[in-house]
Amino acid sequence: MSGPKRAIVLLSGGLDSATTLAIAKREGYQCHALSFAYGQRHAIELDAAKRVAHSLGAVEHRTVTIDLAAFGGSALTDSQIPIPESPSTGIPVTYVPARNTIFLSYALGWAETLPARDIFIGVNAVDYSGYPDCRPEFIAAFQSVANLGTKAGVTGDPFTIHAPLIELAKAEIIRIGQQAGVDYSLTVSCYQPDTAGHACGLCDSCRLRAAGFAAAGVDDPTRYRT
Amino acid sequence: MSGPKRAIVLLSGGLDSATTLAIAKREGYQCHALSFAYGQRHAIELDAAKRVAHSLGAVEHRTVTIDLAAFGGSALTDSQIPIPESPSTGIPVTYVPARNTIFLSYALGWAETLPARDIFIGVNAVDYSGYPDCRPEFIAAFQSVANLGTKAGVTGDPFTIHAPLIELAKAEIIRIGQQAGVDYSLTVSCYQPDTAGHACGLCDSCRLRAAGFAAAGVDDPTRYRT
Repeated sequence: MSGPKRAIVLLSGGLDSATTLAIAKREGYQCHALSFAYGQRHAIELDAAKRVAHSLGAVEHRTVTIDLAAFGGSALTDSQIPIPESPSTGIPVTYVPARNTIFLSYALGWAETLPARDIFIGVNAVDYSGYPDCRPEFIAAFQSVANLGTKAGVTGDPFTIHAPLIELAKAEIIRIGQQAGVDYSLTVSCYQPDTAGHACGLCDSCRLRAAGFAAAGVDDPTRYRT
Repeated sequence: MSGPKRAIVLLSGGLDSATTLAIAKREGYQCHALSFAYGQRHAIELDAAKRVAHSLGAVEHRTVTIDLAAFGGSALTDSQIPIPESPSTGIPVTYVPARNTIFLSYALGWAETLPARDIFIGVNAVDYSGYPDCRPEFIAAFQSVANLGTKAGVTGDPFTIHAPLIELAKAEIIRIGQQAGVDYSLTVSCYQPDTAGHACGLCDSCRLRAAGFAAAGVDDPTRYRT
């Protein structure tokens, strides 16, 4: 493919995807950020995504509305299922069926037409909260799908799915992001923030984030509910 | 997984997916049909899907709206690109980037929550019009994604992606569908039908369909524009 070095970056508005965007930018990509309004409880993260995309110089930011709540099955999209407020084991109830598969599929469609051949996703297999679609073998399998199921892939102009955080601990992610210019005060990680974006401090995502700042020796800019 | 034998069946309203639904039904599945309003020019096929789902006894039929036209890049979703009216070679302009990947991703999300572990898709690699996402290697790769990226897959309750038409010629598909009770007069294959559902008779899809009925020795119930 000729033309500028473009990338699609999946951007949730949380800590990991913000860091991923900063990494892609630092690697010289023109970044097209992609977010999803998927019926999540924590839709305030979409405002965070917008601020993060602007702050890190994404050339474009699109938010696609998709209805994952129609299928249910997750505490993140079904208000009848409470968010756990103590550490959970195994695959937690906040798992959203096929979420990253759907997100990557849209990214692939956009990438093919843009065109871009690089897709960045901020999944993480170390502090991954037990989500199966955050593991290296899933990312590798999706890259195969991308290259077998698209015109670009079969005509010798293949896609690469980048997951630069996949083997990193949260503290390393935070250190890298700091160096790359991420303003973490703009990001929202909490699964159940209040309407002002204040975090609960209790859910898995808040716990991982707080532990990461502590381990990195970086001041935690998270605004918690009082 | 215990409980009834359920399947998600991707249903476009065309000949192939109607036949696929009939096959899944004959194999004893309770069929949950899934269609997409994806900005296609030929949205009248969604009316056909509804009729086909009812006619073949699907227990449920859902249509999910997704915005593939936002990304453009295909004659099926971009009215600026004309539908070819003579046979084309290679991958045609009616190819929609990542379409089947996105469709299967949604089917996977629904399947996991329903729950169902069988997903049927009517892709066909013989008369496949040159679409890369209609080939066996693509289907196999997506099945890997399904089983690596979901809770069900990693906990030993795997998904199977069924593509029962993938190696069949159009005439064989029609013969099987006739035996399985498909009323092909309900289906719409044309890429540019008129508002009454009459086919153009000129596009790739019309040509493949008409040749299939001829080769099968079956009367073609297609209603053409006059």
